Amino acid sequence: MLRTHTCGELRLSNAYETVTLCGWVQKSRDKGGLVWVDLRDRYGITQLMAEEGVSSEAVLDQVRELGREFVVKVTGKVKEREAKNEKISTGEIEILIETLEILNPAKLPPFLIEDETDGGDELRMKYRYLDLRRNTVREKLRLRHKVGSATRNYLDSQDFIEVETPVLIKSTPEGARDFVVPSRMNQGEFYALPQSPQTFKQLLMVSGFDRYYQIVKCFRDEDLRADRQPEFTQIDCEMAFVEQEDILNTFEGLIRHLFKTVKGIELDEVPRMSYADAMRLYGSDKPDTRFEMQFVELNELTQNKGFDIFDSAELIVGINASGCAAYSRKEIDQLTDWVKRPQVGAKGLVYIKYNEDGSFKSSVDKFYSDEDKKAIAEKFGAKPGDMILILSGETDKVRKQLNELRLEMGSRLGLRNPDDYKVLWVLDFPLLEFDEETNRWHAMHHPFTSPKPEDLSKIESAPGEVRANAYDMVINGTEVGGGSVRIFEKPLQQQMFKLLGFTPEEAEAQFGFLMSAFEYGAPPHAGIAFGFDRLCSLFGGSDSIRDYIAFPKNNSGRDVMIDSPATISEEQLKELGIDVK
Amino acid sequence: MLRTHTCGELRLSNAYETVTLCGWVQKSRDKGGLVWVDLRDRYGITQLMAEEGVSSEAVLDQVRELGREFVVKVTGKVKEREAKNEKISTGEIEILIETLEILNPAKLPPFLIEDETDGGDELRMKYRYLDLRRNTVREKLRLRHKVGSATRNYLDSQDFIEVETPVLIKSTPEGARDFVVPSRMNQGEFYALPQSPQTFKQLLMVSGFDRYYQIVKCFRDEDLRADRQPEFTQIDCEMAFVEQEDILNTFEGLIRHLFKTVKGIELDEVPRMSYADAMRLYGSDKPDTRFEMQFVELNELTQNKGFDIFDSAELIVGINASGCAAYSRKEIDQLTDWVKRPQVGAKGLVYIKYNEDGSFKSSVDKFYSDEDKKAIAEKFGAKPGDMILILSGETDKVRKQLNELRLEMGSRLGLRNPDDYKVLWVLDFPLLEFDEETNRWHAMHHPFTSPKPEDLSKIESAPGEVRANAYDMVINGTEVGGGSVRIFEKPLQQQMFKLLGFTPEEAEAQFGFLMSAFEYGAPPHAGIAFGFDRLCSLFGGSDSIRDYIAFPKNNSGRDVMIDSPATISEEQLKELGIDVK
Repeated sequence: MLRTHTCGELRLSNAYETVTLCGWVQKSRDKGGLVWVDLRDRYGITQLMAEEGVSSEAVLDQVRELGREFVVKVTGKVKEREAKNEKISTGEIEILIETLEILNPAKLPPFLIEDETDGGDELRMKYRYLDLRRNTVREKLRLRHKVGSATRNYLDSQDFIEVETPVLIKSTPEGARDFVVPSRMNQGEFYALPQSPQTFKQLLMVSGFDRYYQIVKCFRDEDLRADRQPEFTQIDCEMAFVEQEDILNTFEGLIRHLFKTVKGIELDEVPRMSYADAMRLYGSDKPDTRFEMQFVELNELTQNKGFDIFDSAELIVGINASGCAAYSRKEIDQLTDWVKRPQVGAKGLVYIKYNEDGSFKSSVDKFYSDEDKKAIAEKFGAKPGDMILILSGETDKVRKQLNELRLEMGSRLGLRNPDDYKVLWVLDFPLLEFDEETNRWHAMHHPFTSPKPEDLSKIESAPGEVRANAYDMVINGTEVGGGSVRIFEKPLQQQMFKLLGFTPEEAEAQFGFLMSAFEYGAPPHAGIAFGFDRLCSLFGGSDSIRDYIAFPKNNSGRDVMIDSPATISEEQLKELGIDVK
Repeated sequence: MLRTHTCGELRLSNAYETVTLCGWVQKSRDKGGLVWVDLRDRYGITQLMAEEGVSSEAVLDQVRELGREFVVKVTGKVKEREAKNEKISTGEIEILIETLEILNPAKLPPFLIEDETDGGDELRMKYRYLDLRRNTVREKLRLRHKVGSATRNYLDSQDFIEVETPVLIKSTPEGARDFVVPSRMNQGEFYALPQSPQTFKQLLMVSGFDRYYQIVKCFRDEDLRADRQPEFTQIDCEMAFVEQEDILNTFEGLIRHLFKTVKGIELDEVPRMSYADAMRLYGSDKPDTRFEMQFVELNELTQNKGFDIFDSAELIVGINASGCAAYSRKEIDQLTDWVKRPQVGAKGLVYIKYNEDGSFKSSVDKFYSDEDKKAIAEKFGAKPGDMILILSGETDKVRKQLNELRLEMGSRLGLRNPDDYKVLWVLDFPLLEFDEETNRWHAMHHPFTSPKPEDLSKIESAPGEVRANAYDMVINGTEVGGGSVRIFEKPLQQQMFKLLGFTPEEAEAQFGFLMSAFEYGAPPHAGIAFGFDRLCSLFGGSDSIRDYIAFPKNNSGRDVMIDSPATISEEQLKELGIDVK
């Protein structure tokens, strides 16, 4: 090795040893006869020094020439520092430089390579290899490695086998848009990149693999949002001869193991909630349960009192913002404007303040007596000092709006601490959802999800009421994983495709291999997939998955560092038998 | 879970327990009043039985209906078998069936699901999910999991970090043909799938990651041979602040760990050989060193004795086939025909038998005296009973031919036992090779490989003589890994691109990001990549990597199971802005 030690390793006990370090110049300070250099590598920072009268002129000249981010190799003696730095692990020592070799000089970086940098997003993406030098960024990828490692350890210990499934597969019309790959050997035909290894993992169950997992890249050609990437990573799992309960237990085990290993947190038992309850109590299928503030429905208490808006509403529903009775008129106006923004879309906001003195003040005092308000407050379990916030309208819309308001109030009240973790299973999702645009039913999870046996009778008559054996894991209001018990019988799978608007020929052309596999002895099976990037960002306490990806793409799907995508040669196009329009 | 135990778990100590098993019917035997069923899962086989007079009529009827590969759930009591089967771990017990549930019936499989099957290649590929049910095939994927797991354990223990690099990158003209992915958001432009994460891992070194690895899918759009797949998996590694010696030691450590963990073999220290010696002694840069039979060059001893063919040859070189003096005329003629086949391409074969009685017999007795032959035999260290086989011609060609003959003789003499493992480092590869077809120099490893400093002066004057800091790991004559110390300075990298025929503009357009990175403080670094599929097949003692891939493609790049590649819709083509010719 070019070095005897790393920059994070030396302690006072190494004093008087002659060592060789390699690393990057973080910064240097020249104070009269003394020059100090902070040398950085992945493991830490070590202080180097040279001194007039002690060090040779040659060394002093060299040290004074060093610029930020020069790569150097230094040999010298470890000595105790006069001014110790308790903030770093090597802070008790420094190295008196004996020889110094510049392994590679560096131009001045386009932004500061410090925890707090002056580089903007695009600049840091263009020079991602410099951004990755920053401790905060490198630590994120280190965390990612740790989460991956702990995941594999747990699943290996549970007898799961990691099996790699193909990346070059076949395009299917179901789900999101596929990336495709033109085939040169089979001109006019295309491979597709997998949105998930779904059908392959089901085939592995048919093969008897029993417990499969894979940490695997998946691909979706969708217009990008801040937290979406065209390529992303999943922890993909499947088990045979199990029921929903087994999946919940096994993967609750995984998440407990990850929290313990990665965060040092002993997780409580993971509570479970039906989709119906989640929508009713939180207006969301991924409620943030770090705080209560559950929805209370008020139709009974508020209708037929002469307030037209409530009287004509399908749902009147509110939350209790604890301790907010002191909100000023201005603050309430701001909150009203907030819920009226297009992103939330409410028409207005009704408030009832339960003042500290026990009196009530509301925006609807004209219609509701103090007694009415007291009854409402009781229904919320509100105390003096609280403020109740109420929205009304169509059930689905108003729940969505109140969900936004609840999250906003949770944030304002400091109830959404990123270091506090609440994990939740949401169960019993609907099997199907109706898409107005295409005027047909879509699979809410995917077409391989099994309906609950007790709801099977409604599958033709009331498809919207059929519940699925499907489940999501939600952490702090973010869906981190989801899965289902699968269909494993050909007739039911055919019926499902029919419901989704496939002709028998289309179903056969797309998924014939899977239905054929079901005829040769398919076991009952079920599975789940976790968003690995998302999970890592959550463990890191961050909202953005991009930080947890070594070389992410921007919102236009471009890698601005390597400048990709790019044009290809005429010869390549000719070989592939395609033309660019 | 649907079962209390697996089919590989029950022992005599479980007698009298009531258990529930799930699995596939391997076969059943009906002998008068007794019916036996072998139930199979991933863990083993357990014998079930039903007996007239003991079991209910209903159970007997059900059991008699079971076909091969039916999926069943069985509850019953464990009892000691009368006729024990020592070949299987559950052979001391059987289950007296109490209740039986057919979870899924099965059509008769298109081939036998046994270790020895009657299914041809294409049929087994079309029904790969059934082929994967066979123990021998499943064990291969289990081995693969084990190799992957052990690799990660070792590299984690050495402070390596696994970092995922992107799959959607940019096409480069260097190397093999790229698969490309049309971009919808940037019409007319394409991503490419990586042939390896080479530039990204080098950038991670520039970022200070220091020790990187990844078990990663790579892609090459090449015409396929039996042991090539369009998508394959690499163990990809890179280290900073190291020299070649450090890479050799670290990855010798990996391979020793894998042999120990996966095969229970304590490997000897891995010997090293220069490329020049490998070519001289074995005619191959990947010699099979399970057996000696080294080349001996005979120009000095055989030229100017009147034998025109040798006199006009650039190289006369032979091997000693130990104990083969008894070869008949017919056997020698067959061997001569064998070396003359187009796949080998020799013009003829000269033999010298060193008979048991000490006499010599050769095909060139006319030109060489017994003394001449004795001198030759001595040069080989041959003993009575041996036979020397000699080829002659142009150096490169004749070495290649004799390599083939050596391997053939090794096989005939039983010296190439797949359970015997010889690992070898081959070092000091040439930096460049001249391609007659394109009339330019090509990088033998890749354009990022550094020349040996002592050969740098020849880089313009005699590029063909410059050696690289490049190394391959060879096991039993198969290259399993290769790598190099990289260029990390922009001027040298520019010079290299120039040598390879890039204009400065082309070099900048393709690899500008990497050369730019080299200007911001790039450390010395080096790396290696192992062919994971190949390594697994080697540990499994097989020649074919296809068996070690769950869902491989055939020689036309097709997945015959899912029928991919396939045409895509007009709408997809329109969105991507491409036409199929």
